[in-house]
Amino acid sequence: MADAYLQTGSEIYEESFRIIRAETNLERFPADVSRAVVRMVHAAGATDIADDVAFTPGVVAAANTALRAGAAILCDSSMVATGIIRSRLPRDNDVICHIKDPEVARVAEREKITKTMAAVDLWLPRLEGAVVAIGNAPTALFRLLEVVAATGVRPAAVIGIPVGFVGAAESKEALIDSPLGLDYLVVRGRRGGSAMTVAAVNAIASTDELTNTSRQD
Amino acid sequence: MADAYLQTGSEIYEESFRIIRAETNLERFPADVSRAVVRMVHAAGATDIADDVAFTPGVVAAANTALRAGAAILCDSSMVATGIIRSRLPRDNDVICHIKDPEVARVAEREKITKTMAAVDLWLPRLEGAVVAIGNAPTALFRLLEVVAATGVRPAAVIGIPVGFVGAAESKEALIDSPLGLDYLVVRGRRGGSAMTVAAVNAIASTDELTNTSRQD
Repeated sequence: MADAYLQTGSEIYEESFRIIRAETNLERFPADVSRAVVRMVHAAGATDIADDVAFTPGVVAAANTALRAGAAILCDSSMVATGIIRSRLPRDNDVICHIKDPEVARVAEREKITKTMAAVDLWLPRLEGAVVAIGNAPTALFRLLEVVAATGVRPAAVIGIPVGFVGAAESKEALIDSPLGLDYLVVRGRRGGSAMTVAAVNAIASTDELTNTSRQD
Repeated sequence: MADAYLQTGSEIYEESFRIIRAETNLERFPADVSRAVVRMVHAAGATDIADDVAFTPGVVAAANTALRAGAAILCDSSMVATGIIRSRLPRDNDVICHIKDPEVARVAEREKITKTMAAVDLWLPRLEGAVVAIGNAPTALFRLLEVVAATGVRPAAVIGIPVGFVGAAESKEALIDSPLGLDYLVVRGRRGGSAMTVAAVNAIASTDELTNTSRQD
């Protein structure tokens, strides 16, 4: 079996991205968004993810500029935080996730909210100009919109790709329709998740396509 | 907006699983496999994942029995290892992932193989009776089959859900068609990923449906 499959990471990436570009309709995306979408398709193993992508034209530039200025990346889940490849980050940027803080569980219990919502509230001191990466919980995205509306503190960009059957589609439509006018990159509907979110962040952080990827293979 | 969405984790789970069971064709699955598939659908945000699931009837029982006996969980990626909820594990089982070991990068470079393959080779001392959780790299699954064939050392069960465009579908078919006769749970085709893999492991580890979940919300 040893000779029956590609065994070097760079060959696998090159062939993967060739297949994705051949099979995916990327025409409507600016070049920088297109690179992120290719990686998101790669992470999902599904070319039709591209059809559900919604974005503001400046989102990749805004997020990349923020990262190059040292912005923090605020994540809703540990899997998102883990998947972000540190060596792709231009300024050794902080990758922050509060979901496992003991205080978060206490606040969630007391206020009858999700742990995610309590964790998002803790983003506030680092939220101005940050890159938000939501790949799990719809309530994170709903809460973020509430916090921005209530405080006027604004992230540079929102990678908003929560997944699921309760609130996921609605939270992403709320971001798209929001009068706050945030820069965003989302996958509409129920689909989403930490892998696609990580893929988008890693694509935005560095233009290097074939190395140091979130796939780790 | 505060009253417009469900804000407690248990309510969200209950409603999510109700929707999934209403919309997903689960008839062909034994009860224990069905519980895992519901969680995998939940993680993917896509009910048609269930149509691509292939399994051996004893896979969930084999994996659960192994975990209750203290088996290690061998993971191909850091995201998979991170997503496994420790509090669901019956014996404080070891969750092992070698992908970031410096030695793995050196071996991969020297032998012109993927880092994943080099990392899988390091599983061998813990492989007998282990639960394997592959959620990222097709080369991990190909290599596992080679290692088992070469050594006769056998894991208790293989959760084999790598994702992608090069080798993912083929690696899963190789597991299904393998004369080794391993117990397996896979999602055929290109789709897969760390989130679905974690969801399967968390479902297998504990029958508790509404708490301590991989969704963390």
